[in-house]
Amino acid sequence: MCMKAKERLRKLAEEVFEQFENGENPYIEIPIRSLRNVRFDPEKGLIMMGGEKMKRYFLNVSHAKKFMQTLMVASFVKKLLDEKVTVDMRDLFYSLKIPIPGTKDNVFNEQNESDPIVEDLEVTLDLLREEMNLKADKKGAMVGDMVIVDGGDEIDLRRQGTGGWSIPSKVEQDVIQFKEHTAKFVLFVEKAAVWERLNEDKFWKKMDCLIVTGKGQPSRGIRRLLHRMRYELGLPVIVFTDADPWGYYIYSVVKQGSINLAFLSQKLGVPDAKFVGLTTQDMHKFDIPKSLGIKLTQQDIKRAQELLKYEWFKTKEWQEEINHMLKEGIKFEQQVLSNKSIRFVSETYLPTKLEQKDFLP
Amino acid sequence: MCMKAKERLRKLAEEVFEQFENGENPYIEIPIRSLRNVRFDPEKGLIMMGGEKMKRYFLNVSHAKKFMQTLMVASFVKKLLDEKVTVDMRDLFYSLKIPIPGTKDNVFNEQNESDPIVEDLEVTLDLLREEMNLKADKKGAMVGDMVIVDGGDEIDLRRQGTGGWSIPSKVEQDVIQFKEHTAKFVLFVEKAAVWERLNEDKFWKKMDCLIVTGKGQPSRGIRRLLHRMRYELGLPVIVFTDADPWGYYIYSVVKQGSINLAFLSQKLGVPDAKFVGLTTQDMHKFDIPKSLGIKLTQQDIKRAQELLKYEWFKTKEWQEEINHMLKEGIKFEQQVLSNKSIRFVSETYLPTKLEQKDFLP
Repeated sequence: MCMKAKERLRKLAEEVFEQFENGENPYIEIPIRSLRNVRFDPEKGLIMMGGEKMKRYFLNVSHAKKFMQTLMVASFVKKLLDEKVTVDMRDLFYSLKIPIPGTKDNVFNEQNESDPIVEDLEVTLDLLREEMNLKADKKGAMVGDMVIVDGGDEIDLRRQGTGGWSIPSKVEQDVIQFKEHTAKFVLFVEKAAVWERLNEDKFWKKMDCLIVTGKGQPSRGIRRLLHRMRYELGLPVIVFTDADPWGYYIYSVVKQGSINLAFLSQKLGVPDAKFVGLTTQDMHKFDIPKSLGIKLTQQDIKRAQELLKYEWFKTKEWQEEINHMLKEGIKFEQQVLSNKSIRFVSETYLPTKLEQKDFLP
Repeated sequence: MCMKAKERLRKLAEEVFEQFENGENPYIEIPIRSLRNVRFDPEKGLIMMGGEKMKRYFLNVSHAKKFMQTLMVASFVKKLLDEKVTVDMRDLFYSLKIPIPGTKDNVFNEQNESDPIVEDLEVTLDLLREEMNLKADKKGAMVGDMVIVDGGDEIDLRRQGTGGWSIPSKVEQDVIQFKEHTAKFVLFVEKAAVWERLNEDKFWKKMDCLIVTGKGQPSRGIRRLLHRMRYELGLPVIVFTDADPWGYYIYSVVKQGSINLAFLSQKLGVPDAKFVGLTTQDMHKFDIPKSLGIKLTQQDIKRAQELLKYEWFKTKEWQEEINHMLKEGIKFEQQVLSNKSIRFVSETYLPTKLEQKDFLP
């Protein structure tokens, strides 16, 4: 992993150096990350980046500073990999908030300058930032029928108490290894409170699965972990969110990726993920009083109408669900199931839907 | 723990029942939680609630609904304790979003009605909500020289990989027990990224301590855990935040409690906690370029001036620090130390300050 990253950094540096030596105007070729270069690939089921690239030149007044910044970040990352140390984006920024020799200016003055340079490097070198020893905030937790190795420590995910194992931001193979497991699938749960309910009821034991929570929109680390479990272990990924446009969008990000991080879809996406609920149509199936719903806001309605138009929500089932939500004018939170009884979610709702494979695609 | 809670709930119910039987107008006596009933107790070093109480009557048009709600919540909590099940505040709300017999109204229509009733019960019965099997969001992580028991599972905090043990919202003795430990103190770290740096460098091993992060303002669970480690294990608590008014306030909440939760100060506060940094004066001690600071905003300045007036910041040392910040016009983030070198925080800054006991009171 680390060798691959070093190799690509070296190649980048060598190319630039060669251009210098040949008396050419050195440049770096960077794939374009803007919306116009993003599209949905129906075959792959992923939001993907197109092939457009731009050249960033050294001898160009409007490029020169960014060219220098790109090489400074690349060189800093090389140092991280050599020293086997992991830092976050803020550390990287502070480490390079240093004067440019012979000027009064700094390499970076604000983090919003250094963040995009890291993304440029990710897409140029086809590396995750985590593979470059850069990390984001950690978020989320997991328990279930599996033993993993995390930074050399063996961790039994069946014995993680009430809190669970917290998912680090870097979950690449060199840090996290899957050991034995008997789990049959992975359940991703939007709300931490619902995850805690499932953990307290040992849902993962009864259903032989892993349960993961993202506390809202999942971090890159969580998405990468879901992706790895799907492709390295062959475990189906099933998603459980609120019945509202924001919950549906969380599902969509887990499944086909996001526009922002389109260049990572193949590393983070799980195109055959399934959606178990909550749906607004569940109110009929499970006899949930409409009065427990929350009235859609203008923002909800606008977002739902946007979702209807996304290519990847154009299946019959999703159009029905979103239109049903708009017709009824309400949304439901996952916790609404507590109204039936505290353990309804773990004893009735999820087992029923999972058994009947009552999923949205 | 659970017996104590049940006992007090029973007593509350019996008192109300007796008043009914005696033909009196039944009432519940509830300590007042507003600012006018809160003061700083310099002897205890805690923000405490005063002795003012109010009576909530059944036969009073403006009290009747709240009286009913209070008893409904008490009865629901009794059920939770009987069934040994833990839920969050949202679950409680949904469980009681049920019609009042003979009316078209619900017991609760919005969660902002049920939350204060829970706080009323906490203060009336002198119980933490966690003791009533109600929980808040979990947040934060811990690693270090200790083995704990969490929900029956033995967890070795020395072998928690990169993510650490995630601290649950309920950390009472019936869920979390401390087993063997060799730690000499507890370091609370504001930023998760800095905590991860310390974890990666095995700082807790080198310094023989526990490291806890709260990801900003610590949750009740984290504060309760710090309190328990201080009083059950005798471990000093040392706090490490950004050098800005918000970081200082985090310290103050850990130490003397908050106005909001003044009724819990004695269960959550650690009045002899110490502040290791970051301070703006560290820029001189550790030769941190002023250019790495961030200019104070109007909001920062206003907040700093408020802090200067809090009784518990009136020590010479804190007045000096806050005035120094205002004079220089800058604040520093914890990650600023990365500019010296990535491991500066774990190899130089913290060891130096801890060794010299260079703390603010």
